[in-house]
Amino acid sequence: MGDPAGSGPETVLKALTRASLLSRARLVLIGDLGVFRRASETVGTKGLHFSGIDELADFREELATVNVVDLRNVSSEALIYGRPSVMGGKAAYECVVRAVDYALHGSVHAVVTAPISKESLNMAGYNYPGHTELLAELTGAKDVKMMLTAGHFRVVHVTTHVSMREAVELIKMPRILETLELSHGSLRDMFGIDVPRVAVAGLNPHSGEGGLFGDEEIKEIAPAIAEARRKGMNVLGPYPPDTVFYRAHHNREFDTVIAMYHDQGHIAMKMVGLMEGVNVTLGLPIIRVSPDHGTVWGKAGKGTADENATTEAMKLAIELATKKYRLET
Amino acid sequence: MGDPAGSGPETVLKALTRASLLSRARLVLIGDLGVFRRASETVGTKGLHFSGIDELADFREELATVNVVDLRNVSSEALIYGRPSVMGGKAAYECVVRAVDYALHGSVHAVVTAPISKESLNMAGYNYPGHTELLAELTGAKDVKMMLTAGHFRVVHVTTHVSMREAVELIKMPRILETLELSHGSLRDMFGIDVPRVAVAGLNPHSGEGGLFGDEEIKEIAPAIAEARRKGMNVLGPYPPDTVFYRAHHNREFDTVIAMYHDQGHIAMKMVGLMEGVNVTLGLPIIRVSPDHGTVWGKAGKGTADENATTEAMKLAIELATKKYRLET
Repeated sequence: MGDPAGSGPETVLKALTRASLLSRARLVLIGDLGVFRRASETVGTKGLHFSGIDELADFREELATVNVVDLRNVSSEALIYGRPSVMGGKAAYECVVRAVDYALHGSVHAVVTAPISKESLNMAGYNYPGHTELLAELTGAKDVKMMLTAGHFRVVHVTTHVSMREAVELIKMPRILETLELSHGSLRDMFGIDVPRVAVAGLNPHSGEGGLFGDEEIKEIAPAIAEARRKGMNVLGPYPPDTVFYRAHHNREFDTVIAMYHDQGHIAMKMVGLMEGVNVTLGLPIIRVSPDHGTVWGKAGKGTADENATTEAMKLAIELATKKYRLET
Repeated sequence: MGDPAGSGPETVLKALTRASLLSRARLVLIGDLGVFRRASETVGTKGLHFSGIDELADFREELATVNVVDLRNVSSEALIYGRPSVMGGKAAYECVVRAVDYALHGSVHAVVTAPISKESLNMAGYNYPGHTELLAELTGAKDVKMMLTAGHFRVVHVTTHVSMREAVELIKMPRILETLELSHGSLRDMFGIDVPRVAVAGLNPHSGEGGLFGDEEIKEIAPAIAEARRKGMNVLGPYPPDTVFYRAHHNREFDTVIAMYHDQGHIAMKMVGLMEGVNVTLGLPIIRVSPDHGTVWGKAGKGTADENATTEAMKLAIELATKKYRLET
């Protein structure tokens, strides 16, 4: 469900119905039935029947039926769209906890999370910077990273929410190697790519041009690549940052690009299509996918938030689950 | 002509003929007639007649005639494709000198340069890192900058060929302000945009998020923007780097984006289309446009180098000259 005061419930329903996803997998929503009913009226999903259930065992297979594990944790009267709240934060938190619990017990094959609000979470007493840290704690995972995806174009970052000044200091061989191992392993185990092609971007313009514009490529990045290759991974680079993303996206030369800092990967990803980004969390024992945007407070209650990223997230979750668990399609 | 051993002469001829540019302006090539004749055979330009001339006064207006100011500075027998050489560097240099001379005297309205080789130039005794520095010296210009363009999407950089570590140190208020003034003035005077919309990218992720990830936005970038606005310029930002390029390109919200470092702008520009980039030099007393790629040594003599960037460069030169000199079209 995500934060009930945000656009999440609406985009989830739009994605479910417009992309005919109901017929492609057994989808179950986790959240407050009343919130989903209201969102359904807002976005105008015709002919949908909601079935509130307490446990997955009660899942109903009828056509055009949306099963909702009803946590009854939102009071419609008290809910104000577009605003963080204790109630919203608590409800969003409980949805994630339940979904992760199902996934850890094998009751669901994958989890798609709708946007939550850091502010709501904090107001409700849950002090996490975001989904990722919460998921890591709930699953006991240690080394967790986000992969940004837009179809076959994928990016994993060595550093993210730090200043450029700090990013430069953090780009060290062990951190890079850790990112390479996590990315390479996930592409193989989660995405089912037997020999993943992992390209590494340099830090400096032209990848340093042989030490002329910085030596991090020589001192840190190349040694990390060499070590990864020694361990049998198909890792390539370092490449000039301004062309490696183009080569991955337009020429499909690589299965993922390792970006050194936040904007390297995010600029490339955004230029491909702002609302189409989908995140996959690497390093968790479960499959977890999410749209790469926030609660879109301004459009909550209006039904106007774009559902494309949520649709793509659901499709990818189905694809990854089908591969991992060798499900029939 | 550019370096005669590179793909320049071939891409120039392909651009001239395939895009029917001969009928849109009075175009004159500057270089070695023999080189162009051979390039013409290589790329198979049918029905073209070459007219070697010594001075612009001899320009012949006949249809399908390509006028070449013949500098007779290349020996076809000695020329080896795909390799830097003293002869190539000297010839390329002389072409630029002649073209700039014509432009400074008002004999031509604009100059398009084909790719040169820094190595050839240096071998011939001309120690310039590239075209830009040579052009600055020949024209006596002091504050010169490259603008990358792909149609309406334009980027100017505050720093370029330095390490990320050094770039962070160079991002200071006076340098940013200088870039803003040059960009704003050029969009108005050269591109004919009355009230240019100049967007400024931040340096750090999310533009620093209020000082959380770096304070260059607060200490250097915002003050430069404030000063530019005080001087009457329509300058906006600083914006989060990962969305400002998208907004300029996809939503056409800005006439140019000021990038803080090389890969910010180059990643965004390359994602739009690797071979379509066109450079315009800002700060010169003449109009100068060029394709944003090198000599493409590997395709020289084969006629296979992509002429798209050269075509776009010629079109833009015609457009800018038409505006600046209020020519009839």
